[in-house]
Parts: sequence; structure tokens; C-alpha cells
Amino acid sequence: MKQPDSISPALFPLYSAVQLEALRAAVIEPGPVGQSLAALRQRFEPWLAVPPEVPGQGEAGSDAHNRHQLNYQLIEAAGSLYLLSGEQRYADWIETALTRYANVYLSMDFHPQRNTNPPGRLFHQMLNETMWLLYASLGYGCVRHTFDAARRAHIEGWLLRPMVELFTVRYAHDFDHIHNHGLWAVAAVGLCGIAIGEPRFVDMAVDGLAGDRRTGGFLAQISQLFSPDGYYIEGPYYHRFAIRPLCLFAEALQLHRPELEIYQFKDRVIRTTIRALLATAYPDGRFPALNDASRSMSIRDEGVLIAVAIHAARYGCDATLLATAQQQGQVWVHPAALALADTAPEGAGHWPSTELREGPDGTRGAQGFLRSANAAGEISQVLMNYGQHGMGHGHFDTLGITWYSAGDEVLREYGFARWLNVESKFGGRYLPENKRYARQTVAHNCVVVDGACQNGFDVARADAVHGRRHFFVGEGDVQAMSARADEHHPGVHMQRSVLLLTLPELAHPLLVDLYRLVSDSQHQYDYALQYSGQITASTPPLVAETRQWQALGETDGYQHLFATARASLGDGLRLTWLQGRRFNTWAAAASEAELLCTLSGAGDPDSNLRRESGFLLRTRAATHLFASAFETHGLFDEESERCHGARPCLQAVRVLGHDETGSVLQILLTDQVLTLMLSNRPDVRPETEHELLIGDTRYAWSGYLACRRG
Amino acid sequence: MKQPDSISPALFPLYSAVQLEALRAAVIEPGPVGQSLAALRQRFEPWLAVPPEVPGQGEAGSDAHNRHQLNYQLIEAAGSLYLLSGEQRYADWIETALTRYANVYLSMDFHPQRNTNPPGRLFHQMLNETMWLLYASLGYGCVRHTFDAARRAHIEGWLLRPMVELFTVRYAHDFDHIHNHGLWAVAAVGLCGIAIGEPRFVDMAVDGLAGDRRTGGFLAQISQLFSPDGYYIEGPYYHRFAIRPLCLFAEALQLHRPELEIYQFKDRVIRTTIRALLATAYPDGRFPALNDASRSMSIRDEGVLIAVAIHAARYGCDATLLATAQQQGQVWVHPAALALADTAPEGAGHWPSTELREGPDGTRGAQGFLRSANAAGEISQVLMNYGQHGMGHGHFDTLGITWYSAGDEVLREYGFARWLNVESKFGGRYLPENKRYARQTVAHNCVVVDGACQNGFDVARADAVHGRRHFFVGEGDVQAMSARADEHHPGVHMQRSVLLLTLPELAHPLLVDLYRLVSDSQHQYDYALQYSGQITASTPPLVAETRQWQALGETDGYQHLFATARASLGDGLRLTWLQGRRFNTWAAAASEAELLCTLSGAGDPDSNLRRESGFLLRTRAATHLFASAFETHGLFDEESERCHGARPCLQAVRVLGHDETGSVLQILLTDQVLTLMLSNRPDVRPETEHELLIGDTRYAWSGYLACRRG
Repeated sequence: MKQPDSISPALFPLYSAVQLEALRAAVIEPGPVGQSLAALRQRFEPWLAVPPEVPGQGEAGSDAHNRHQLNYQLIEAAGSLYLLSGEQRYADWIETALTRYANVYLSMDFHPQRNTNPPGRLFHQMLNETMWLLYASLGYGCVRHTFDAARRAHIEGWLLRPMVELFTVRYAHDFDHIHNHGLWAVAAVGLCGIAIGEPRFVDMAVDGLAGDRRTGGFLAQISQLFSPDGYYIEGPYYHRFAIRPLCLFAEALQLHRPELEIYQFKDRVIRTTIRALLATAYPDGRFPALNDASRSMSIRDEGVLIAVAIHAARYGCDATLLATAQQQGQVWVHPAALALADTAPEGAGHWPSTELREGPDGTRGAQGFLRSANAAGEISQVLMNYGQHGMGHGHFDTLGITWYSAGDEVLREYGFARWLNVESKFGGRYLPENKRYARQTVAHNCVVVDGACQNGFDVARADAVHGRRHFFVGEGDVQAMSARADEHHPGVHMQRSVLLLTLPELAHPLLVDLYRLVSDSQHQYDYALQYSGQITASTPPLVAETRQWQALGETDGYQHLFATARASLGDGLRLTWLQGRRFNTWAAAASEAELLCTLSGAGDPDSNLRRESGFLLRTRAATHLFASAFETHGLFDEESERCHGARPCLQAVRVLGHDETGSVLQILLTDQVLTLMLSNRPDVRPETEHELLIGDTRYAWSGYLACRRG
Repeated sequence: MKQPDSISPALFPLYSAVQLEALRAAVIEPGPVGQSLAALRQRFEPWLAVPPEVPGQGEAGSDAHNRHQLNYQLIEAAGSLYLLSGEQRYADWIETALTRYANVYLSMDFHPQRNTNPPGRLFHQMLNETMWLLYASLGYGCVRHTFDAARRAHIEGWLLRPMVELFTVRYAHDFDHIHNHGLWAVAAVGLCGIAIGEPRFVDMAVDGLAGDRRTGGFLAQISQLFSPDGYYIEGPYYHRFAIRPLCLFAEALQLHRPELEIYQFKDRVIRTTIRALLATAYPDGRFPALNDASRSMSIRDEGVLIAVAIHAARYGCDATLLATAQQQGQVWVHPAALALADTAPEGAGHWPSTELREGPDGTRGAQGFLRSANAAGEISQVLMNYGQHGMGHGHFDTLGITWYSAGDEVLREYGFARWLNVESKFGGRYLPENKRYARQTVAHNCVVVDGACQNGFDVARADAVHGRRHFFVGEGDVQAMSARADEHHPGVHMQRSVLLLTLPELAHPLLVDLYRLVSDSQHQYDYALQYSGQITASTPPLVAETRQWQALGETDGYQHLFATARASLGDGLRLTWLQGRRFNTWAAAASEAELLCTLSGAGDPDSNLRRESGFLLRTRAATHLFASAFETHGLFDEESERCHGARPCLQAVRVLGHDETGSVLQILLTDQVLTLMLSNRPDVRPETEHELLIGDTRYAWSGYLACRRG
């Protein structure tokens, strides 16, 4: 194997001297790269104007923690600023900072261990320590050639090499773990090797400790972490975190180990996985909070900035990618971002409806995304999880959905129960309520069987099963996806089908949701929805609990829900709420059912839960079809006191019949009736003929589904 | 009295042909007037491109209601667009619209009456009908000269004159009522008179029906509606609504009745009241929701746009006014706005601390506003109401405060219980919960005595009393205001003093709050605060109600509050919550007290209440001083996962002593102790000497207060 070039002013970790010249030329022109450099300079310049500070240890979110994090960002930024400006003071700053760290690093004790991630010397967990090494290596690699041999020996011998040893010897197991933390570790060690000219480190990073490219190392990681469609099992929140070291190390390997042809590796897996990540985002750029995730993480994250630039430079750029870059508002300050210099054309397309299959060979279900733009260009998106459980961070929500419409998440994810980096909230770590509530089935837009979490909240059991795709139609005015989960509750077969209907009567696409449960025995079925806002109308009227609210249960998340109001349902439900500027109406077929309005906040001794609203549509049956439709309508602009369309067009949903062949329902709009027919046959194909006789009426259709007027 | 000039192409209702030329020249240049015209055109052009529709009647927020409202806006816009563009189609649109209204107006029945405001033919209340006439008159006055005599006779005889008759004969009492609705009525009738050349209407509008300029009419209105400092008794939400007809009619009178010298009238009351309104706004431009008010009404309201332009044109423009105009984001499309063409200088000053006295001669208390900018230019604002009750829309919150810090309202107003123009929420009218909760003392940042609303929720009693100013210091690093309310709870004297301290240790000014109650007998005192966000730390720890929440009382707003957690306080309280991006810490001196955490939402059968969080610090005493301090600190940026400063610098507040001479307390910061001494003497003057002996220590100071380190 070819050895990497030794570091010289002609080759830095992330770009060559030739690329640097192009970048230098670009940043003085108006454009996104120059603006982003100005932002970077504005953010870091005040800190680079004063000598570096090296604190001791602290909790996540503490001053010490924040300062170590800032320091690695400063070292990297100073490296780039040195190369772009040629100003010696940047190199000096890095020299002082790294020297100070080298002076103390080996004399620092390890943090006390508080969670599953082993502690580092600088940080409470190794993950942050690997991030530190990665960024410090990038910055060091930009200025190393200006330091004398003694300085290099001190920094490398007392800081960088001991860190590598820590990761690859003491925590060798984690280094070879195929996981996002492992990806950070290999990228850090590899980039350190490139920065200091130590090919052995690069070899370990690329090939794994065993050198087999299978049990560990970067190639094994990117081979095994993603499904053939590029989906990352832990979900977009962790995917955007993993994509950062992935892209950084790939770009360095392309430069320093070109013979690997990393961007072509495994059928261009890097391209596939970047596109998969971008395809999960909501229209406003936020990532749906699948599994443990913040509700505000978005495509503006640093990793996604890097990924978009890498895609543009290495795999090309189209209008959708340019529009994404524009939405990001800034670009990575790197030659790759020069490929993003163009302005997105007006009305550049949104990411299309997509099905991202899960599992090593794509056979363990999928995450389905349906999208549709209305006449005003506003994009609706419904997401259904019919794939795998997300490992240790997985939520027990197979067949769960989220629904984004008219600029807001309407059927919502709670996200994780955690205040990341908030020192006073358990050091920023996961809170007990994450397991007790946030990961439970009832906290999602799902059906809960007999008040119990899917798979009994057993991660091993959940990891062993997965959802099963039924069909997916991602184009046209009637988009739909349907899937099954047969192993998540013993003895209960579940099928969920969601449709996105573009109708001329409606300002926004209508969401239709059919959740069918089949069992030999009676069960309590709770169709759960999470929403936000103020109820403005309900038929039948709600009966509020006016004097006291009681917790709804003892376990499985119910102990955290208060019942705030109820309604007995005999002939369906229609309920409207105002969320921000928009009204949303939910119509459901329901007989012999009860509606419970809920609020999270019970069983919360430490004020760890947010108080969020929900609905539980409860019924008792063996086999049952929950059929619902959701319309977004009207506008309420409180500041200007304008309001229209507070009443929906959607009037009712009626189930005409359902069996193993199919489900037939009617959706009543103000001046129109829609009849929907949908296949329940596991063997359905586009040409399969279906027929149901319901009363005297025969309903027949070909293929997955049909939608007829009248 | 001189008769108004008859309408001719040389003189339109709101500007002369000469002013029109200046406006025409300005709108084709880059600048705020041209941009605002483009926005106006973009908003209304689609509607002006199709024939006008004249619907029947409907509830507030209904399609019919919205269309009538849109129509008067369109008529006015078309008038301006006709004059600015000369395009005949705009005049034609107005002709068709007004002809269609004239065809049906007198045959329309009156709406059924549902609230205290009498119903109109087009709208559910007369107020909207007067707004319709005002705007229709403005539009008509721009194009009347292009219509033939028969068309004029039809429109004026079947629509405009009958409307004037409705307001001045059938509802004569309301026409002469000194109130914001009366202001709309007189402005509408006066502008109609100017538009159609009927001096009698202008006379009625200016002088009142009795012609005495005292019992009614525009001059009486603007003489009597405002205090000498320009404050409007109902508060900023209604003030900004009243200022619109005021400014429009004033500008027309300046043109058509110049001999009135309206802008000099009563010592330039129009200037004073515009400035008073602007001085109430929060730094983000929203108006504090004093009395019945929306929480989102702001200086971007149309009336405030007009008022700012009028001020600039008629009374001059300074940097603060320019900065306000810039914050508004658009200007009124009128020659007056040409005075706002300049760009505000960098760092233009904010509105200063202000005391707006109340009552006809300024002796019925005041509304006090303290403001201070930190090093980053972020403005903190505390507001205390020690003035009058706000009439029928008044909230029972004398000595109540609100606190705005670092971009958010921290100690919050609930605002009104109403969804304005939301048809499905009781036709957009005030909801029963407005009286039951939103106007009650406990819903404010106030002290509730014996669980009872101030003045027993008796508006007549409340209107008869008022707060009393004690002192006001609106400049420097120690700003303060102090006031009393002695007649709001029988047998209890209340004094509240709030201080805004700029301290080098803190990123934002510290709010200090001393609420002192003096009585001969024991009472239950509840120091109530309304906040938003998540509690992150509390000393002593809170004991949460984990299985059930119960309503806190039966009446006076307590029936709408759940107790969610409690703490027994022996040695003070320190509690931190995270609101959006900032942490806020409240430290309070407290012994033999109980802290109750509350949530609104009990007793709410129709889901009319928002669920908002609060605290009640409860103690039982005859004489008691609640002493608190509030610090805004740190930063939490969830999207970028950055957090610092979750722990406060503020450690504790201790009361050393208080009596009829003064109150002395200590504020403990991390590395500093502040001693505050504050006068309680009703006769205090800047030179008054004070002395308190507490234990062995003598505390002495001159004047209102002193703040010492150590």
C-alpha cells in the first residue's frame, strides 16, 4: 500500500496548495464561501485575539467542558485562517494552545464515569475526546510545517500520540465498534496520522485494528453502517452526526490515499448516504425526531454543511441540492463548497417522496416519506417508520407516523427527554423520563395495545424484529404507503396505510390514515396522537375534567399522562385545533369508542417533561380499523387580527368495510364524497384485482388502492 | 366657521394635488415608500383584478365578515392606486363596489345583537360599520370627481348618507361617547363629509352633535381621552386602535380645516399621545398586554404606521423615531411618510424610561416604564401599573408588573381570553374565561390578598380608585420606581418598588422587586408570577404532584389553576427556568412560606384557556415584605447544541428589615453582596434622610434609595 505523502506546504489534511489558491481567490469575491468565512472570522476572532485558556474538567455544559470544545473549534478555525490569510498570529495561537494541552494532558485524571460512554481526560465521555483530537489534528496539520522539531515532538509526543493510544489501546473495543462513535474515533485517528505524518495511524483508521477492513476501521464502518438506500439505523439525528467525520476523513483520504478511490467505494456509498440523510428532512430543514433526537436539529448542522459541499464537489450539484444549500444559509469554508457558488433557480424542486429501505440488504422494512407541494409551493410531508428499531437510542414506535403541513409539524414527535449540554439538567445527559416516557409507544403517533409498549420495551427483542413493507406509491395526486408489523405485540397483526391526497377543494394535501389491527382475542387499542395548540371545535363536545386531572396509568408511559377531557363516541369524531397560524381538523370513524385528551407532565418529580397535548382514541375489539383524515385549513394571524377558514372542508370519515382483501371508506367533504379502496392483501401487485361486497354494494379495484369521487 | 373646500382634483381627503405629485415622484425611487406601495399593490392587486363581491352577513371571522372588511380595504387602496397610477380600472372598481353596496345596503337587516356593541347591517357590531364608512370615504374621495352626478347621488344617497344617519341619529349616544369607538365614529362621519363635500357632517364630527366641543366630537375626544402625558386609559392595545382614526382625521382636518390648527391643538396633544403610545412598546415592538389585549399586537399595526409618519411630517423626526420606523418594516403610503426616508443611524437610541401619568390632570397614578440596555445593546424593560383601572376592559392588577429581558417577556401577561375573529371561538368575541381568569388579580404578576380579586372584581369600584406614585428614578445604573395601592383591598396597604440594576457582574440588568403589605390583621398573601419554560433547578427542591393535579380554589381565578408542585420555604428560594434560549433565576427571601407551582387549565369546559405556568409564593402575615430578584443568564441554543451559563450569579435575597421608614435587603451574588436601602416614607424627597437600626447595625441613606456593595 502506498504511504501517504509526508505533510508539506503542498498538501494539508483537507486540501492541496492548489485547492487552497482557488479558495483564497473565491473568498475575496462576493458569494457564499466569502460570507461563510466572514461569519467564521466574526465568531472566532475575539477568542483568537487573546491567549488560549486550558481549563480542568467539568460536566457537559459546564464552563470547562464548553471551553475545551471551543478550543478544538478555535484550533481548527485558526488553521484555516492561517492558510487563508498567512497571518503568523494564527499559527502562534495554535502553538500556544497545543503546547499548553501537551503540558497537562497526561497528568489529568479520567472523569468519573456516569453513563455507558467511557470517560475521557478532557471530557466526561470519550466521544468528545475523539472530536477534540479530530479538530485539533485538522488545525495542527495546517501549521505543523511552521513549527520546529522540538515543538512538534512535544505536541505529538505528549498530546496527540497519547490520545491515539488511548483510543486504540485502552478503548480498542470502542474503536472497532461499528457505530457513530466508532466513526468519530477512526476519523480522528486517521486525520491525526495524516496531520503528523504517521501512516500507521492512517492504516489502523482505514483498515481497523485487525487490518481486515471487516471487523473495524473506516471502510468497515461505511460498508456496514448504512442500508443499501443509505439510511442510518439510529435515524437522522445520529446520521447527521456520523456524516461529519465520515465526510471529513473521506475528503482527506481522497487527497492522501487517492488509490483508495474512496468516493467510488462500495457503489458510491458516500453519495447514497448523503442523499438519504437530506431526503429525511422536513421542508423547513429540521430533521424529524426519529428515535432519541432533538426537535431542532436541522440541515444547518455543521456535518450537513460539509456533506452538501462534498456531494456538490464529488458527485455533482443539481437545483434541489442548491436549494438545500441556500436553505442552510452558509457553506463549509473549504474548496468543495466552490461547487455551490450558483444560486438555486426559482421554484427548485423539493426532495421527492422516498422509501429508504433498512438492513444490510434492504430487507428489514423501511422509512417511508411522502411529500406533496400545494399550489403555493408549501410542502406537506408524512413519514412512517416501518423499519428497524434504532438500537440503544431506538423508540418503540414501529408504524408510527409524523405529519408536517403548512410550515409546522402537526402530528408531532416528542423527541428525547434531555437538555443537551445543560449542566443543571443531569449534566446534559439522558434523563430517566427518556425511557419512562419519550421512548414509549404511547408517546408517539401509534396504536398502543393493552396499554403496553411495543416489544415490552425490550431493546434486544425490538432489534430482532422489524416492520414489513406492503406497498409504496410516491407520485401523483394519490400517494400512499402501507406496511405491517406482526411481531411487535404478541397475537396482534398491525397494518398501517397512510395516503396523501391532493384535492382541488383543499388548500393543502389531505392526510388519510388507516390503522388496522387483527387479533383472535379482545384487546384495548389506543390510537395515540401528539399535537400542539388550542382546540377550537369538537363534535361530539368534549367533557373536560375541570376540578382535577389524574394520571392515566401506572406504567408504559401512561403514568406521565393526565386525562384532561373525554368524549364518548358513537358516530364518529371531528375535532379542530389551532396550531400557530393554521387550523387542523381530524375526522375519525368511531363507534363504541372513547376519546381521551391528554397532557404530559404527570409523574415528573424533577420537571423534566415538557407539557404537551395528545389524544387517545380508545376502543376494545379483536379486529379493528382506525380510519382518520387530517385537513390543514385557514389562517389566523393574531398580530394583524386576520382570520379565515376556521371551519374545515372535511366533514367525516366512514368505514364501509374491511377484511383480509381490503378496506373501503368514505371521506365526506363539504360538497363531495370520496370513496377510498385499499388493498390489505400481502401479495398485492399493481395488477391484482380486488372485490369487496359490503351490504348490497360491490367495491372493485385493481392494484394497491383506488380513490373515486361519489 | 369657514366651510371646507369642495372636493376637486386639487384636494383629496388626505392630500392635495401638490402633495400627490411629491408622493408620485417618491414611489418610483428606491426607498421605504416605494417598497410599501409595492407591498400594498401585491396584497390587493389580485382582488382588484376581479369584480367586487358583496356578501350578506356573518359572524366575526366568517367569510362574509372578512369580505366586507377586505372590501373597505380594497376601496381605500384602489383610491390611492388610482391617484398614484392614473389607471381608470381602479376608479371603475370603486364605482362598481360602492354601487353594489348602495343597491343592497338599506334592504339589509341588522345583525342579531350578541354583545354590548350594537349591531350593524354589514357587521355584527357598529364599530366595524364605522370602520367601513371611514375607509370607503377615503377611497371614494379619491375618485368621486370622475363619477357623474347620478352615480354620486346613488352612492351618497343610498349608502354613505344613510350610514352617517345611522351613526348620528340611531346611535347618537355612541357617537358622542368619549371612547375609542366614538373616535372611530366621528372620524368616519367627518371623513365622509370631506369626501362628499358635506360640511354639516364635518361640523358634527369636529364639534359633536351638540356643537359644544365638550360633550362630543373629535375635539372633545382628543381633549378628554388622554392624560396630560398622552396615556390612554384602556392601555396600548386600544390606544394603537384609537390612534388610527385620530391621525387620519387630523391629517384631513389640517388640509380641509386648516384654521383649526389641529396639530397645535391643546398643547400638541396629538404629538404627546403618539409619543406616549410608542413609549409603551417592548423592545421587540410588541405592546405589553395591559388590560384586555392580544399578546402579539405591535408597532407594525396600521395605526402605528400612520402615527409614526404623522409625527415625522408634522412634529419632526429623530433617530429613535427612525429606528422605530425601521422596526416597523414598512411605512404608510402617504406624503407624510416622505419624512421617514432616512436610514436610522447605527445604535439609534431606544425609548427612554418613562412615567406616563394617568387621569385628566395627571394625578391618578401612572404607568411606569424602566428600560436599560446592556453592553450588547439588548434592552430590558420593566413595567408597573400604578395608575387607573382600564374601564370595561380593565384588568384587576394595580401594582402588577411585566418584565422583558433578553428578547422575551419573562414575567408575563396572559392577555385576553379571546380568539379575535376566530369564528368557531364564540364568533371571535370575549370568552367567559376573560372575566373568570384573565382579568383576575391572580392571573397577573401581583399579590393576591386572601385569595380575592382586587376591588372584588367590581369595575365601578376599581374605576373610582387608582395607584399612587411614590417615586420614579428613570436614569443611571440604579433605576427604580415605587408606588402604593391603599384602596384595592380593604384594610391592606400595599407598596411595590421595582429596581433595575446594571451591574458589571451580570450580562443583563438585574430586576429587584419589593412588594410590601401592611395590615392590622392577618391575611393570606399570594405573590403571583406568570412565566414560561422549563424549571431546571430549585432550592429547596420542589415536591411535584405526580398522580393528580387539583384546582387550587373555587373563585377569583383560582378555579382555573392546578397546583403542580409545592415546596416549603424556611430559608429563601432560588429557582431557575429555561425560557427559549435563556435561563432566568428568581431568588426570594422567604420564611414560613409555601411555594406553589401552577398551571392554568382547570375549570375550562370549552378549551378556552392556554396552559401557562405560574408560581404562587404564599405566606400568612399582617405586615409582610416580599423581596425578590430576577437574573437572566446564559444561553441555550438547542439547534447548535451550545449551552453556557445555566447556573446564575444571583445566589440569594435577604430581608434585613423594613418599617414605615424604609426597607433594607441584601442581594448575594457569587462574589459580591449588595445592600439595598429603599424609602417607604410617603413624604420622601431627594434630600430626605433615612435611618434604620437593625440589630446592632445602622443603615442610613439620603433620598429614595441607596445601593451599596458589601
